[in-house]
Amino acid sequence: MGVVIINFKAYKEGFGKRALELAKIAEDVASRCDEYIGIAVSFLDLPVIAREVNIDVYAQHVDAVGFGSHTGRINAEMIAEYGAKGSLINHSERRLKLADIEYNVAKLRELGLTSVVCTNNVPTTAAAAALNPDFVAVEPPELIGSGIPVSKAEPEVVENSVKAAKNVNREVRVLCGAGITTHEDYVKALELGAEGVLLASGVVKAEDQKRALEELVGLS
Amino acid sequence: MGVVIINFKAYKEGFGKRALELAKIAEDVASRCDEYIGIAVSFLDLPVIAREVNIDVYAQHVDAVGFGSHTGRINAEMIAEYGAKGSLINHSERRLKLADIEYNVAKLRELGLTSVVCTNNVPTTAAAAALNPDFVAVEPPELIGSGIPVSKAEPEVVENSVKAAKNVNREVRVLCGAGITTHEDYVKALELGAEGVLLASGVVKAEDQKRALEELVGLS
Amino acid sequence: MGVVIINFKAYKEGFGKRALELAKIAEDVASRCDEYIGIAVSFLDLPVIAREVNIDVYAQHVDAVGFGSHTGRINAEMIAEYGAKGSLINHSERRLKLADIEYNVAKLRELGLTSVVCTNNVPTTAAAAALNPDFVAVEPPELIGSGIPVSKAEPEVVENSVKAAKNVNREVRVLCGAGITTHEDYVKALELGAEGVLLASGVVKAEDQKRALEELVGLS
Amino acid sequence: MGVVIINFKAYKEGFGKRALELAKIAEDVASRCDEYIGIAVSFLDLPVIAREVNIDVYAQHVDAVGFGSHTGRINAEMIAEYGAKGSLINHSERRLKLADIEYNVAKLRELGLTSVVCTNNVPTTAAAAALNPDFVAVEPPELIGSGIPVSKAEPEVVENSVKAAKNVNREVRVLCGAGITTHEDYVKALELGAEGVLLASGVVKAEDQKRALEELVGLS
Repeated sequence: MGVVIINFKAYKEGFGKRALELAKIAEDVASRCDEYIGIAVSFLDLPVIAREVNIDVYAQHVDAVGFGSHTGRINAEMIAEYGAKGSLINHSERRLKLADIEYNVAKLRELGLTSVVCTNNVPTTAAAAALNPDFVAVEPPELIGSGIPVSKAEPEVVENSVKAAKNVNREVRVLCGAGITTHEDYVKALELGAEGVLLASGVVKAEDQKRALEELVGLS
Repeated sequence: MGVVIINFKAYKEGFGKRALELAKIAEDVASRCDEYIGIAVSFLDLPVIAREVNIDVYAQHVDAVGFGSHTGRINAEMIAEYGAKGSLINHSERRLKLADIEYNVAKLRELGLTSVVCTNNVPTTAAAAALNPDFVAVEPPELIGSGIPVSKAEPEVVENSVKAAKNVNREVRVLCGAGITTHEDYVKALELGAEGVLLASGVVKAEDQKRALEELVGLS
Repeated sequence: MGVVIINFKAYKEGFGKRALELAKIAEDVASRCDEYIGIAVSFLDLPVIAREVNIDVYAQHVDAVGFGSHTGRINAEMIAEYGAKGSLINHSERRLKLADIEYNVAKLRELGLTSVVCTNNVPTTAAAAALNPDFVAVEPPELIGSGIPVSKAEPEVVENSVKAAKNVNREVRVLCGAGITTHEDYVKALELGAEGVLLASGVVKAEDQKRALEELVGLS
Repeated sequence: MGVVIINFKAYKEGFGKRALELAKIAEDVASRCDEYIGIAVSFLDLPVIAREVNIDVYAQHVDAVGFGSHTGRINAEMIAEYGAKGSLINHSERRLKLADIEYNVAKLRELGLTSVVCTNNVPTTAAAAALNPDFVAVEPPELIGSGIPVSKAEPEVVENSVKAAKNVNREVRVLCGAGITTHEDYVKALELGAEGVLLASGVVKAEDQKRALEELVGLS
């Protein structure tokens, strides 16, 4: 059993009513396979989806602040109150300062939430692992959204990221992402030592989202 | 009749259940006075409040992007879909680049939403007015959260901001903010030519929020 | 007589010894034509070039801070001390927050230095003009470095920027940029009401920089 | 023999002519003691100081870009060309994204330059160590510029940072900073396992800079 986290990003196909529909698809597929499936949704969609859907719902980002005079910010405490399981941190499209990644990882842990720190290569994966998050998800930026799977195009990045991360912190679990679309990509990721994948367009932008997710986890 | 916009910020007292309670207080007070009362709430609270409360609900920020690969971002189209009336833009605690302010103002207008651009002094108020938003809200940063009302401490900033803004763009409406707490502060702001106020802690952090808002609009 | 400001960016061909050589080319060409020629160079090159070359030397950016605990920052006072004539502000590759643009414009004016605020379209040009800089330079981002001259591809952007800026502030002078390479592009810019151009790759990345600059100002 | 790196920041007392004077003081003191003394100066001062003074000169920051269309940016290659020994990276007043810290560390190493990554606590020190820089300098932000020495106020931060860093990467050398002023503070830092200190106001803002530096290294 591996881990599959689907990032809805700010895709039209993953927002609003379509986010809820896709979340229900993910719930349904999760109930029929052995994989862990989590979804990362927009702040606006999170409250409804976390209430209505019986799989783990993540935020896509949290700001490294507490409660207070922080107009426009959403912090870890806030997503906890609305039922989030955890949050992505430092996604390639939402890079954070090192001190803020550390703040978020520590705060999510304190709140009993799950942290998934995204990184871009082997050294940053090792660095993120040192912060003791639950997951590090390594995604070579040039492959994100490319349809070229990291597990095939740069298998050594995945393997070496796993090694580097475990070397720093045995407890941390490593995901990989970027270009993951097929079951083969996913299986290959697991073979390389990753405990799962983080993916987005491969499912969210698929013509048939349900079928795409079923295919990914090997149901079809 | 003036304009009162209450910014809930990331205050604990303005988040989650307490946000909904405060929103209902604002709705109730609005129904008993002649002022226009709007509220600016967190992204997580916006969907429920916009549905349940019969006053205008604003976002505190929008990101200057469209739909797409923008993990962790909330754009103008998204808040529109959830029933927001408009958004604050460029709040002192969430400053934006000039090009992004312009993008947001234009996008909100295109969507039929209301833009409230925050500024910090007379020249930035004139600059913001040139972008043709619905409102510019001038707030000297050193007075924000201070309890010292801008309308008393720096009346010339308010007066000159109104003049400078109108000089550039007759249509734009000017609010002022920072330190506004009492009905006297509010009346003074209107006397100086502002069409209303943007405030936060004076109501949200008040021991008795209802009473504070009633006092502000002259109901008590 | 029009204004030509050459932005050396972080081009290899405009840095170090090659920056000094190019600065001397600009000085030479300036002495043989009627145009005003200024150059915007890197912080590291500025001290030597401002001392050795007899044309106006601009910084490419200044940080909106005073002296103090600001590790890694270069402010307006600092470039003044090293003989800069002024600075670009808010270049497309170094966008600033509105409040920081205003700070820089006011500070440069206070120090007797020249401010050149870059903008990306008509409304941001009007907004920048309201801050009362010496120059606003409008550059549609999609044309920067494209070789497609703004004065031909989007003449209405230039014309309307001039109108919008003058409407807000009669004193401000408008430049245009993006894709400017030939004398024809330059003349066209002046015809559209601009008082000159801001350019970079057209000269800095040219195989023969001297010839390119001569051609631009109509010397060849 | 320990390491002393003096950060001139954007202090008036550490800029321009006064930067050169202070650099010469540092050179003089270095020649009379056993400590390694390096200085981190502004971009504008770096070229002259690196040429005129016979101690190692560092930049206070580098931007994580190569040569190219990067108006206003200074990269690692540029400071190398002007004789810098290396650079501070991620100073508390100039925080960087994790991916950019990694880029800079790798680039400086490739160029044969020395990297000094600043961090704010034990976990971020471990994370920085994983990137394999030459030095990590841990500085609790609340003590920076306070005059309260980290080596006395939070000795466990220094000790645990050394342990955490060495645990991840035996090669990395750990400095500490924040509030360091006296020889006693410095000796205490070495006793706690640090290989030296990063300091700023204790010397740069001292009434008698020479005497302050002599005192620090135990010459008076």
